[in-house]
Amino acid sequence: MGENRLCKLLGIKYPIIQGGMVWVSNWRLASACSDAGVLGTIGAGSMTVDLLRHNIEKMRETTSAPFAVNIPMLRPDAAELGKTALDMGVKIFITSAGNPANIVPLLKRDDTVLIHVIPSVRGAIKARKEGVDAVVCEGYEAGGHNSPLEITTLALTPQIADAVDIPVIAAGGIADGRGLAAVMALGADGAQIGTRFIATTECQAHENYKKLLVDAADSDTCIIGRKLSLLRVVRNDFAKRMEDAERNGADDKELMKIIGNEFNRNRAAAFDGETVEGAFQAGQSAGLVKDVIPVAELVRRIIAEYDQARTALGAL
Amino acid sequence: MGENRLCKLLGIKYPIIQGGMVWVSNWRLASACSDAGVLGTIGAGSMTVDLLRHNIEKMRETTSAPFAVNIPMLRPDAAELGKTALDMGVKIFITSAGNPANIVPLLKRDDTVLIHVIPSVRGAIKARKEGVDAVVCEGYEAGGHNSPLEITTLALTPQIADAVDIPVIAAGGIADGRGLAAVMALGADGAQIGTRFIATTECQAHENYKKLLVDAADSDTCIIGRKLSLLRVVRNDFAKRMEDAERNGADDKELMKIIGNEFNRNRAAAFDGETVEGAFQAGQSAGLVKDVIPVAELVRRIIAEYDQARTALGAL
Repeated sequence: MGENRLCKLLGIKYPIIQGGMVWVSNWRLASACSDAGVLGTIGAGSMTVDLLRHNIEKMRETTSAPFAVNIPMLRPDAAELGKTALDMGVKIFITSAGNPANIVPLLKRDDTVLIHVIPSVRGAIKARKEGVDAVVCEGYEAGGHNSPLEITTLALTPQIADAVDIPVIAAGGIADGRGLAAVMALGADGAQIGTRFIATTECQAHENYKKLLVDAADSDTCIIGRKLSLLRVVRNDFAKRMEDAERNGADDKELMKIIGNEFNRNRAAAFDGETVEGAFQAGQSAGLVKDVIPVAELVRRIIAEYDQARTALGAL
Repeated sequence: MGENRLCKLLGIKYPIIQGGMVWVSNWRLASACSDAGVLGTIGAGSMTVDLLRHNIEKMRETTSAPFAVNIPMLRPDAAELGKTALDMGVKIFITSAGNPANIVPLLKRDDTVLIHVIPSVRGAIKARKEGVDAVVCEGYEAGGHNSPLEITTLALTPQIADAVDIPVIAAGGIADGRGLAAVMALGADGAQIGTRFIATTECQAHENYKKLLVDAADSDTCIIGRKLSLLRVVRNDFAKRMEDAERNGADDKELMKIIGNEFNRNRAAAFDGETVEGAFQAGQSAGLVKDVIPVAELVRRIIAEYDQARTALGAL
C-alpha cells in the first residue's frame, strides 16, 4: 500500500483512480487497473442494475484488489444501483453529476468509503458536510459531462485543497506522470485519470474510439450542449453540427433534435466505433494519448514519469 | 541569475514573468517585479506610443534589472509600438493576441529576445518557425483576451513542451508557488503570472479592482463575448448582462450594444474602480488571491511555496 493518505484510505498502491466513465469502464478495465495498483472503477452510469451486478461478480472473480463503483446522481435509479453494489459488498463508491445528499445516508457505513465529484469550492464544502470521505475535483478540461462553472483543474485544485481537510483527487487534463506530479504539487492527494485509460488494451471501447484518441491533437475536443448540459467530446461531424447550431443561436429544441437519441450516440461511439455520428466523450488530455497499451504498462509508465518530473524540479 | 534556461535567456533570478496586462501593468508594477528578481513587463496594449515611451523612461530610472514590453498584435500600430521600444533599447518583447509574423523581422536582433503567447500546439510550432525565442502557452483559465480553442493550462503545457525545443512559459491559473511547481512539473520552464500581480501595493489598479480579486471565489470569473472575442472578467452586473444576453441568443450587434465603449469599460474598471459596470479582466486564479501585498513579499512567498510544494512531492 502507498504511503499517502489517499492510498491508505483506499488500500491502493498508487494515488490514482481510474475514472468510472460511462460506456467504457466495465469490469475488464477496472480489474486490470486494480491489479496494477490503482483504483479500478466500474462506471455504472451506462449500466442496468443487472449489468452492474454482473460486473461486480466479474470483478470479484478476477481481482482481489480494492475497486470502486461510480454512480452518477443524474440516474433516476441511482439509489437502487448503490444499494445493489452495497449489498454485494462493494466498499468504495464514487458519486458524480449531482447532489449526493440523498445517497450518502444509504451508502455510508463504518467500512465504506464515499467519494464525491465536485466542480467548485462550494461543492467540496457541501460534500464534506454531507459526510463524504474524499472529493474528486474535476476541471473544465475533463471529458464527458462537465459543470457550467467551467473552472479548470489547475485553478480549482489548490482552492479545494485549501477548503477541505479530506483527501482531494484532481481530475481533468491528466494523462501522464507529469500531470500527476502537477496536481500533487497543487495540493491534491492523487489524480483521477479517465481518457488515458480508454486507450488501453483492456478497455472495451471500440478500436476506432481508441484510434480517435491517439490521433487527437490538443484542440480536438469541444464542449457541446452548453445550453443543455455541457458535454466534452471529440470534435467529429456530429459535434461540429452541434457547435455550428449553438453558434447560430439554436434553441434547446433544435439542439435536442440534432442530438436525437443520446443513448444511441454514446453506444454508437463506444460499441460500434461510429466515428462520424457517435458521441466520443473525451477530455483535453486526448492530445497527450499517443498509443494503446496494456494497463499495467501504462501505470508503470505514469509512475516513472511522475518520478522523473518530481526529481527534475530543482530549487530556485 | 537563476540556473534554468529561461532565467538564463532573460537574465532573471526566478523563472517568473509578470504578465503585461492592459491597463494595470505600467512601469511601477513592472519595475518592482524586475527588482524582485522576476521579469517585469510593461503592458503596452492600453498605451499610446507616447505613454509607452514615458513608461520605458521610468523603468530605466527605477531599475537596472531586465524587463519586457508586451505588445498585443491586435493593436493596429503594433509595429510602431515595437519600433519605439526597440529604438529605446528594450531587449525583451512579448507579443500576444495574434500572428507575430509581421513583427518578428522588425524586432529580431542578435541582442533581443522575442516571446510569443500561443494557445495551441499549432501556434507554438508556427511561432517557433517564425523565429521567436520562447513561447508563453496560455490556458483557458487566464484573464483577459482568450483563445476560442479553450485549451486549459494543465492540458496544454505538456503538449507544448513536447512540441517545441525552445523555453515554454505556462500562463493561466497560476497565482502561487504551488502553481509554479505544477507547471514546471508539466514541462514548462517557468510561469507567467498576471492576476496575482494586480493585487500588489505597486500595481496602479484602483483599490476596488484589488478588493474584487481578494473577495473573488473560484467561480467568480466568466467568459463574456464568446461570439465576438472571448474575454475573461470578474462576474459583475455588466458581465452578468452579457452572460444573460448570450444565453438568450443575442447576436453580435446586440452584444456590442451591451458592451458599448470597451475602452471606457476597461478604463472604468482599472482607473475608477467602477465595480458595477467596469470590465475587470481577471483569471480563475483570482480565487487564490487573499491579500494585497508588496511585490517583493509576493515573490518571496511564491518561491517559498514552490519549494514547499517541490519538497513535499514524495516517491510513490
